[in-house]
Amino acid sequence: MPPRPSGIVTFLTDFGHRDPYVGVMKGALLRVHPKAVIVDLGHEVPPQDVTAGAFHLAAAIGQFPVGAVHVAVVDPGVGTARQLLAVAAHEVYWLAPDNGLLGPVLARDPDADVRVLDAGHLGLREVGHTFHGRDVLAPIAGWLANGRYSFAALGPRVEPSDAVDTVLAGPARVVHVDGYGNLITNVGAASVQGVRAVQVAGRSVPVHATYGDVPPGSTVAVVGSYGLLEIAIHGGNAAVTLGLQRGAPIALPGA
Amino acid sequence: MPPRPSGIVTFLTDFGHRDPYVGVMKGALLRVHPKAVIVDLGHEVPPQDVTAGAFHLAAAIGQFPVGAVHVAVVDPGVGTARQLLAVAAHEVYWLAPDNGLLGPVLARDPDADVRVLDAGHLGLREVGHTFHGRDVLAPIAGWLANGRYSFAALGPRVEPSDAVDTVLAGPARVVHVDGYGNLITNVGAASVQGVRAVQVAGRSVPVHATYGDVPPGSTVAVVGSYGLLEIAIHGGNAAVTLGLQRGAPIALPGA
Amino acid sequence: MPPRPSGIVTFLTDFGHRDPYVGVMKGALLRVHPKAVIVDLGHEVPPQDVTAGAFHLAAAIGQFPVGAVHVAVVDPGVGTARQLLAVAAHEVYWLAPDNGLLGPVLARDPDADVRVLDAGHLGLREVGHTFHGRDVLAPIAGWLANGRYSFAALGPRVEPSDAVDTVLAGPARVVHVDGYGNLITNVGAASVQGVRAVQVAGRSVPVHATYGDVPPGSTVAVVGSYGLLEIAIHGGNAAVTLGLQRGAPIALPGA
Repeated sequence: MPPRPSGIVTFLTDFGHRDPYVGVMKGALLRVHPKAVIVDLGHEVPPQDVTAGAFHLAAAIGQFPVGAVHVAVVDPGVGTARQLLAVAAHEVYWLAPDNGLLGPVLARDPDADVRVLDAGHLGLREVGHTFHGRDVLAPIAGWLANGRYSFAALGPRVEPSDAVDTVLAGPARVVHVDGYGNLITNVGAASVQGVRAVQVAGRSVPVHATYGDVPPGSTVAVVGSYGLLEIAIHGGNAAVTLGLQRGAPIALPGA
Repeated sequence: MPPRPSGIVTFLTDFGHRDPYVGVMKGALLRVHPKAVIVDLGHEVPPQDVTAGAFHLAAAIGQFPVGAVHVAVVDPGVGTARQLLAVAAHEVYWLAPDNGLLGPVLARDPDADVRVLDAGHLGLREVGHTFHGRDVLAPIAGWLANGRYSFAALGPRVEPSDAVDTVLAGPARVVHVDGYGNLITNVGAASVQGVRAVQVAGRSVPVHATYGDVPPGSTVAVVGSYGLLEIAIHGGNAAVTLGLQRGAPIALPGA
Repeated sequence: MPPRPSGIVTFLTDFGHRDPYVGVMKGALLRVHPKAVIVDLGHEVPPQDVTAGAFHLAAAIGQFPVGAVHVAVVDPGVGTARQLLAVAAHEVYWLAPDNGLLGPVLARDPDADVRVLDAGHLGLREVGHTFHGRDVLAPIAGWLANGRYSFAALGPRVEPSDAVDTVLAGPARVVHVDGYGNLITNVGAASVQGVRAVQVAGRSVPVHATYGDVPPGSTVAVVGSYGLLEIAIHGGNAAVTLGLQRGAPIALPGA
């Protein structure tokens, strides 16, 4: 059963800080829930980069109080037929377009409860140039946080596997390079259980529990804080040293 | 009669995020009203660009709860004789220097109540190098939000037309280019009532209710969310395609 | 005796706005104190620039309500043996690594009470790759703000002079250039009591009470809002005009 909403609402967007979009989205939340506690998860996701946004969002897993509501808007498909989702997972709530943003969040909680937002049923107008963050997601976050609507009332339940996942789906590869040059892959922890090494850029990289299991300067694969396999260099920058970037293939034994 | 203040205070400035000015201004607010709910409307207004600031500020109209207090500081004239204003309009409050920042806010509410802040009367020191955002506007926002002073007590009432308006005054022209390349003009909705087309850069642009009234790729004039005439290209970037920027003249029929 | 914590917590870091680090640090605070009022003092301190961070932090002195908790993380030494400090000074609290960040805060309050944080005693795990802002400082800020731990319970008391001070220690010199080009030195107010002039870049600069004591365009030395001697040009940019930057030596008479 989903937790009681806590009144905390976070926002992750690609709106940047130059325009008033972030501010007016918060205004729309406060209009329905003036006591909401607002936290910025970040607004500098590269424009329309859903994969980067998915990783920023996954960084919030387990970091906020039970019942927090996370709103994410990185949405190249605004105006198309893509749906908006509400998810109860990791003891908090997630609202985002169904475009892959929620991929890592769903992949890491087998009990995730996924709903397709039914904005019309909730009394929200759907017009041509709707600013979904402000006009749909922010009010719904407020209603969820203040208890006007229960999670189950937000829309019909669908299977998590029905959600778009542009991040984790497809062949094993690097899907994100973090600020330290670590190469985060789409390979989940379960896939490397008992695996001793993976192949990256023509070399065999040993899988260990932590960076510290190899000497400084050595390349190592670990399951990192995203719950995914990462290729790192202990004390170094794997992306620079190995000359790899997003999309670089990873090979697992027997794969 | 002005609404009861809601405890929500927003800030719009050109301070940027590199210096501690935004933080200390919020500290000054919290010192007089520790329970204030603070929202950033934005701090990346181009330095001293009052026109851009006025458009950012106008984006907040109608977006925040009744009784919110909006504080705006984009102030090339700090240290000169320009006054500070408090305005009750659109069911919220606005505090800003009298330099045009409040132009669109005043233009869109015929019932705006405008006061000249009497900082000395309110017990605020006015010294040479006063940081007005921190030393005057933030405390007044706090006192208004917590009820220590009523709006009417902030200073003598003046006519809205006495406020400086560098944005909407003067000949019809483009006064803002938004992030999508839409050309926002200083022509209000009332001025284009019944008008079928305007002249821009030597071409006639039809006036319609929404972008969708013309085919993709076509140039169109609509009254946008600022309550002002905008020149746009359906699905395109009017500023780039038409080669126009701020200051470009607009001609109305018979003008 | 330290003041009662107010529930207000500020953050100053060099994390920037591109990564989710600031957001998750706030999440860690809210997990222990969901009612905390959070204010950003700034996250654009140049990476690992402790001196710049110290000046940003000092800008908060006297600006926030009594009992506020200021958390600062600019920490090139993370992972080394440097300690974390809690300080009661200026009627508020300060949490930061012991690397000089707190130098100006300590220098300006002779009654500062300094504690070495004992994270293990407080039940916080200390692991290899600990993210100290999130895993240690944010929870401690929350516990201090909500009263779970008194300030005195945070760790053993040490002398303020035991704290690292990379900012104010050493020969008289420029330690910060602010956004206006003012040259802030490490020379405290007490050191220039009765001094009529200092030597900077081969010229004698008169010491006055305020900029206004010299004509526009003249160079002047004043004790500024940091409580330190500043070299300024009335209405001008001293750094540009004098061609000086951080590290430039200052000579006092008889020194």
